[in-house]
Amino acid sequence: MHIFYTPDITQPTYTLNEEESKHCVRVLRLPVGGIINLIDGIGGFYTAEILSDNPKKVNLKILQVEKEFQKRNHYLHIAVAPTKNIDRLEWFLEKATELGIDEITPIISDRSERKIVKNDRLNKVITSAVKQSIKAYHPKLNEAISLNGFLKMPFEGDKLIAHCVADDNKKYIADLIQPNGNYLILIGPEGDFSLEEVNLALNIGYKPITLGNNRLRTETAALATCFEVNYLNR
Amino acid sequence: MHIFYTPDITQPTYTLNEEESKHCVRVLRLPVGGIINLIDGIGGFYTAEILSDNPKKVNLKILQVEKEFQKRNHYLHIAVAPTKNIDRLEWFLEKATELGIDEITPIISDRSERKIVKNDRLNKVITSAVKQSIKAYHPKLNEAISLNGFLKMPFEGDKLIAHCVADDNKKYIADLIQPNGNYLILIGPEGDFSLEEVNLALNIGYKPITLGNNRLRTETAALATCFEVNYLNR
Repeated sequence: MHIFYTPDITQPTYTLNEEESKHCVRVLRLPVGGIINLIDGIGGFYTAEILSDNPKKVNLKILQVEKEFQKRNHYLHIAVAPTKNIDRLEWFLEKATELGIDEITPIISDRSERKIVKNDRLNKVITSAVKQSIKAYHPKLNEAISLNGFLKMPFEGDKLIAHCVADDNKKYIADLIQPNGNYLILIGPEGDFSLEEVNLALNIGYKPITLGNNRLRTETAALATCFEVNYLNR
Repeated sequence: MHIFYTPDITQPTYTLNEEESKHCVRVLRLPVGGIINLIDGIGGFYTAEILSDNPKKVNLKILQVEKEFQKRNHYLHIAVAPTKNIDRLEWFLEKATELGIDEITPIISDRSERKIVKNDRLNKVITSAVKQSIKAYHPKLNEAISLNGFLKMPFEGDKLIAHCVADDNKKYIADLIQPNGNYLILIGPEGDFSLEEVNLALNIGYKPITLGNNRLRTETAALATCFEVNYLNR
């Protein structure tokens, strides 16, 4: 199965852009009459036939469309402090996309060592994982924002914060989550959120969670919550 | 907290090897009288005081020992086909160590593109994750073995195989696992196990499992099972 990401798709015919055309004809060596699949990133899964194999503009005829392809039964937004080593954030994005995630926001907190992220690069990682794992929905990557700014934004659903400050009120995700809901989870930087940040979040309704006794890296903690939420909604 | 991995530990005094001594004195700049922690890889967690700061051989006095430190309540052995890109296997090892795993065996199956793995390098990845996540138990990495050879080895516990061949008998891990047990899970290569291999495993008692509708990479599938087993034993 050959998947192309075509967020600007048109019907009943469509022309692949230059990069994708080259990939189709030169790399995959697909001939006229060949069948490929397109995803639009918002749930559409298309089957298309190659009408012309010009390596700069491949013309396609859309044969079939499936809307809301493998639509998820819940909504997961993870807001995570970008890791000092950006590779670690990238693999989180790849793995979370494979497992299932809807929205990601890089948040800059007091102890963040990295204050800047390049979304172009990160979106390429997500798109690649979307294609590899055959997802018709493309997770949304927001621009990085300060934690304070992020906390002021509205969210309808369960708001959770994973932190390492001692707190007897922490619960396991499993004990907090109702299936088929909307979940927003905050994951802190390598040195954790500051006590002030934790209290700020708790005061506006975030619930504190623990991921168990293991000391997890930022990206592992983020992925663990992604696993758990998807698992609880399986 | 400064953690050193010292599988050859002695009491009541111990001398760090040259590499660890250099790390202790030159990198961490710890002084005489400083306190460090040692792990022996088989459950021992030690607190030690620095008696001499010779950068080639740091002498330590063991102050305290905790045996069976954070002992796990179950046993998890994952046998996984090594990925073509070895980085992907390495990150599986790092993340599985953080989340909790006891034994890993690289298995070479019909469709494995990679037939050789270098355990020295992989063990360093595991050791690093053991120290980073403060584990007193060092996961055991076995030498790579053919799937056929591996299937002949005995295992007391639940034996599961995750594969992508159509099979109505597949179940979710959650529906198969009893907490506090011993689990052995087989994860195939990029191109999946062959039908012959799947049948071979099923015939000797492996139970088929599904990880849901997502098409997961080898290392993501392996990590997903690791996460689920730990989750079910939390």
